[in-house]
Formats: sequence, C-alpha cells, structure tokens
Amino acid sequence: MIPNTNYKNLKDSYLFYNIAQKTKAYLEEHPDKKLLRMGIGDVSLPLCDAVIKALHEAVDDQSTKEKFHGYMPECGDPALRQTIADYYKKRGVELTSEETFVSGGASDELGDILDLFGKGKTVMIMEPAYPAYVDANIMSGNQVVHVSSGEENGFLPVPGTATGIDVIYICSPNNPTGATFDKEKLKLWVDYAIKNSSVIIFDAAYEAFIEEADIPHSIYEVEGAKKCAIEISSLSKTAGFTGTRCGYTVIPKELEMDGMNLNEMWVRNRTTKTNGVSYIIQKGAAAVFTEEGQRQIKENIAVYKNNAKCLMETFDKLGIWYTGGKNAPYIWIKCPNNMGSWEFFDLLLNEIQVVGTPGEGFGKCGEGYFRFSTFGSVEDTKEAAKRLYELLK
Amino acid sequence: MIPNTNYKNLKDSYLFYNIAQKTKAYLEEHPDKKLLRMGIGDVSLPLCDAVIKALHEAVDDQSTKEKFHGYMPECGDPALRQTIADYYKKRGVELTSEETFVSGGASDELGDILDLFGKGKTVMIMEPAYPAYVDANIMSGNQVVHVSSGEENGFLPVPGTATGIDVIYICSPNNPTGATFDKEKLKLWVDYAIKNSSVIIFDAAYEAFIEEADIPHSIYEVEGAKKCAIEISSLSKTAGFTGTRCGYTVIPKELEMDGMNLNEMWVRNRTTKTNGVSYIIQKGAAAVFTEEGQRQIKENIAVYKNNAKCLMETFDKLGIWYTGGKNAPYIWIKCPNNMGSWEFFDLLLNEIQVVGTPGEGFGKCGEGYFRFSTFGSVEDTKEAAKRLYELLK
Repeated sequence: MIPNTNYKNLKDSYLFYNIAQKTKAYLEEHPDKKLLRMGIGDVSLPLCDAVIKALHEAVDDQSTKEKFHGYMPECGDPALRQTIADYYKKRGVELTSEETFVSGGASDELGDILDLFGKGKTVMIMEPAYPAYVDANIMSGNQVVHVSSGEENGFLPVPGTATGIDVIYICSPNNPTGATFDKEKLKLWVDYAIKNSSVIIFDAAYEAFIEEADIPHSIYEVEGAKKCAIEISSLSKTAGFTGTRCGYTVIPKELEMDGMNLNEMWVRNRTTKTNGVSYIIQKGAAAVFTEEGQRQIKENIAVYKNNAKCLMETFDKLGIWYTGGKNAPYIWIKCPNNMGSWEFFDLLLNEIQVVGTPGEGFGKCGEGYFRFSTFGSVEDTKEAAKRLYELLK
Repeated sequence: MIPNTNYKNLKDSYLFYNIAQKTKAYLEEHPDKKLLRMGIGDVSLPLCDAVIKALHEAVDDQSTKEKFHGYMPECGDPALRQTIADYYKKRGVELTSEETFVSGGASDELGDILDLFGKGKTVMIMEPAYPAYVDANIMSGNQVVHVSSGEENGFLPVPGTATGIDVIYICSPNNPTGATFDKEKLKLWVDYAIKNSSVIIFDAAYEAFIEEADIPHSIYEVEGAKKCAIEISSLSKTAGFTGTRCGYTVIPKELEMDGMNLNEMWVRNRTTKTNGVSYIIQKGAAAVFTEEGQRQIKENIAVYKNNAKCLMETFDKLGIWYTGGKNAPYIWIKCPNNMGSWEFFDLLLNEIQVVGTPGEGFGKCGEGYFRFSTFGSVEDTKEAAKRLYELLK
C-alpha cells in the first residue's frame, strides 16, 4: 500500500517551535525574568456562568436513565441548529435550521469540508494566512494559489483576473492581521466567485469581535453569497470554547455546483463520517445564544477589546502603522525601523520580555510585520504596552 | 467548480428508514400496542458515577481563571494517552503514549483515517458490515472488494488469494453479527496483510463485551500486527459514550508503508485538521479507566450481557442457529423456516410487536438473517424473549 504521498509535500512549520525554543533559552539564561506573552492565540478567561450552568445540567442528564442522551443527530441537535439560524436572523440573514450544522470546532470543520470538493482542485489563499489552510489542501493534493496582501491594500486584497480557481479562502476579521472586509470589498469577492463558479470558504471565527456597525459579521450579508459561500464559524473566541470545542457551519441550500447540491452532500458526509457533537457540549453551546449567555460573553469580549484599545493607543502614540484591533482580537503592526519579524521578536524578548508572533510565520508577505494578541490578562497587556512605549518612543 | 463526483456513486440506505416507516405505520393502526425495540444499536443505561463526577469537576475547572483549559493537544491529553497505553498493557500489548490518540469517537475516526491512504485505493470489506465503511470509501473514490461470510464459516471469513488489497476492514466483535475472531483466525489476516503490504483497520468498538479469556480484545495481541494494523476503538458501547463522544485510536510507530510512517502522518494530520477533543469530555473519558470507573462500567455491561443470555437461552430452546451474544452485544440469528429478513421483521412486528434489524440491510449475504441488540431494557428484553418463544416454539 502506498500511503497518501501528498504528505511528502508538506513543509514543516517552525513558527511556534522557534518561538518556544527562543523563549526557553531566554528563561534559562534569565530565570528571574517574567515573560509577558502576547503571542498566544488562545483565550484566557473562563467560560461564562450561563454556559457552566448548562454544562452541569447536561452532565446531570447523562446520569439518569430518564434524561440520558445517546446518539445525537449527526448534523447537530435540531434545536441548536434552529438557534444558530435565529442568531443569523439578527444580522438580517435568513437561514433554515437545515442550512446550519453543529461542528466540533472550526479547525475540525476546515479540514473535513474539503471532502466536498474531491481531489486536484485549485484553491486561492490570501496571505498572510492561518497555516492550516495551506496544509489541509496539500494533504488533499490541491494546488494552492497564494494571493499576497500588504500595507497598500490594508491587508485586504481584491480579486484579480485569475481564472480556474475552485475554492477561495476568506478569513474576516482576519487571523493574523485583524483586518476586516467591509461589504463593498466582500461583494467584489462574491461577484468574482459567482462569475468563476468558485466556492468561498468564509472563516468567521472572529465575528463576535466586530464593533463597527457596517462591517459584515457573515458573508451572507452580501447579496449573492448564498450561491457561492460556505461559512465556518466557532465559539472558540466568541465564548471561550477553545478547549471546550464547538462551532457551526452554514451551507445554504442554494449552493449548487455543477448540478450537485453542497448542502445535501454535507448531510450525507456527516451521516456517514460522524456521530455528531457531544450532547453535553451542545447544551453548553446553546447557552451561549441565550440572552444571559450573550450578555456574559460580551463582558468577556469587552475585556479583550480593552486590551486591544490599550495596545492601539500605544501604537498610535508611537506612530507605528497597524491594522486590526478595532474589529478583531489581533493587532498587526509594521515593525519599526524596517526591522525584520524575527529581529523585532528578539528585540522585544531581550529588552522588555514581551513575546509576540513574527509575521513572517504566516507567509512571506508577513515579513517585516508582527502580531500581537489581545487574549492575555489585563495586567500583562498594560505592562507590555508600557514597556513597548518606553522601548520604542 | 466540480464537486466530489464520487458522491454520485453513493447508494441510499433505506434500512433504518424502512424500519422507521414500518413501525410508524404499525403504531398508527394499533395505537394501543407497545413496541419492544430490539433493533437499537444505542445504549440505554446512563453514564457511571465516576464519569459523571469527573465531568462535573471538569466543568468546574472551566469556570475558574486558575483551572481553565484552552486548546488541548491535538492528539489528546498526554495523561489520557498514557492511560490508554496502560489499558493495553493489561492485555500484554506494549504501546507508548505516542502510539495512542484520543478521538471524538470511532465513527469520526473511521471517516478521517482514510486521509492517510490517499485516493484510488482498493479496500476489502467483510460482509455483512457496518454501512459507513462502504460509504466513506466510495466518497474517497476507493474500490470496494466485498468478502462474503456466512453460516459455513460462522460469519468469520478467512483470507483468500486476492492481491492488490490496500486496506482491510476487520470488526471483531462484529457489528452486526456479534461473531468474534480468535487469535488463530486473526493471525491468518495479519499474515495476509503483511504478505500483501495491506493495512488492516481493526474496529475494536465492542472489545469490552468479550468474556472468553482467549479471544483477543486487540489485534496487537496477534504477533506482527504492529507492522500492519491501525486499531480504532470507542467508549460508546464500553462506557455508554454514544452521546458523550470519545474514542481512541492506536497507530504503532512500527507501521510503515512504502517508507512512510503512518504514526507520524497521523500526528501531522491531527495537528493540521483538529484542535482535539473537549477538555471536559477527555476528563470524563479518563475516569472510565480508573479502578472505580472500570468496576462501574462492568456493572453496566453485565446488564446488557444478561439480556444477551436471556435471548441466547431462548434461541437455544427453539433450536435456532445464531452467532454473537457471548462476546458481543449483538445476536445474529438465522431466520426460522427459511424466512427472508424482511418477512421475519414483519412477522415479529405484527405478531409480537418486537422490532429487530433485518440482516439484509448489512449486505446481501445478510439476507435470511436477523440482528437482535441487547442494549434495550431488562424488562423489554425478557418480555421479547417470552413472546419470541411463544411465537416460534
């Protein structure tokens, strides 16, 4: 048996490994120093009370014969699917429960969804990008077309004239840049996709961080998107579910390609390849969408947004170019004095013990840029901002 | 974009749909009758106390800043991976924690694992079989070679002379037949796989139901299996996790095909395509393997095994041929009087209100056979056994 030889084409990613090695070496030399970790893409606040309560109740259900739940419907608890559809309604997006799917999280879904497209496809990935987009496609033997972005377009590229693109990845608000497409720019991509019969995979994992009223939270706020887009979302950043695991996916019934209905295909995929998300976790997820849950998760998000504000004010004072922060938990800065990503990383680590993420790790056009996460503690973020200002003023 | 056209080759499965339609029609005509459902493949007993306690504790952890868990390691909590390796040690199978992987359940893993093999492979499936084996392979564009089994070999086929087989599915104890390979017969398959460079996917979801001492719980109890087999297991039936979702997979480091190491490939797959299983669920799963957990799950399994005993005694008295039951939660009987599967289904439904599963739904060679599940309640099982005896004596 010859295994999947596409795996031979994967490149090792040394980004987080190198960060770990460098910080470890620094701490070994300076055991008295405390690092301020601003590179972390993981949340730090606990789950909100409404979710905790629902999770405990669901665990109790699993302890009694009367309330015990066995196999769940593969595509998700119908009530939760309806709740998700209702959530979209608040943004003016009309969906039926059968167009929403409960998932074990966006990263799982981003890997699984490729099965719908078969093999040998051409996918377009905007860089800098979340590395898993590229690797999952290499595993499938797909051809990856990279689209660069940069300061000149605010890291928000517009479609070019390329043809033959089967799948387009769009992440907005973006990881790592925090840049966010407005409706107008997103419409250019929807039009391009429809014209070229491409499918857009819209990664909406950070939608809850949008604060400007006219920025779309969902690609379906853009006319025509139901004919070309799959939206993959997550409660990881919205409600602190990074370690609890639940997300959701939308595949509109209108989404047909070459006479094949992608919604029906996904139902078939799920009923074959999964027995669904844990009953307990789905109950916790449902609590996120209650009035109480929404109020509580917004309190947590406000903490992270205050961290963002604190950093943005610092970069404003320093006259450093950046994007993100306003509608996203990431701030993407241009390294001062034309420093390279890793050069700036070393400077911050050695001089002020602040750890961030070198932009170069997200693709070539990230070189010279640097990502700050706002998911750290309030105290650490304030201290990091103070040290950044003193160092770079 | 042309989607995955392999989906066009999928056949609709009407098995459980037809069962549902027939029972619904019967109940509409006879609203006063109560059905005894012996077709169900789902557990009915709640989670054991040790698991419930661990789940509650894990939910509490997620409620405090100090104990909150974000992203889990993609291949599973290292402590749980070690616990699983230790569980194998009790059967004399030596594994390192890096050879075990925590999964969201066997059905999820059976779908995902195919990515290791790439496209256009030839897979061998022993019939009667769990329908998802076939469908997942059709979605991948693989060629399926069916191997029939029957009464003559106790529904335990031995390898023939076929060559060019890339992947072999073995489910033991078997769903739907309950038949179980002994070491000698399993060795024939291991030898065949090594000789032909095939990979065995060993579905061990029902291992906890084995009671005869010399029947292997794991394929790695057979010499050479580490060189050719992946084992996929689950807590669904072992510990009632059908709706709670957790399983585990073993890929030995020795498993290499054409110079590619399948363990390393799977690590790469998981780190790209998932962010792991929920912290809460993994804590619950870990409790299954404690002394207390093992004692408690065995009490639950004993209930189902008593159901099996009750049915087996009935079929013995009636002189009806069957397999399974002894080491499995399923009993697979030959329909009396040469009845067809569906003919027997109708007879039981109409005459004694017992619902089972026609064997024909698991493949052609299941025609004329019938599956009884032992996961129902004690009372229903006793009553069903009584009615079966009265009807068929």
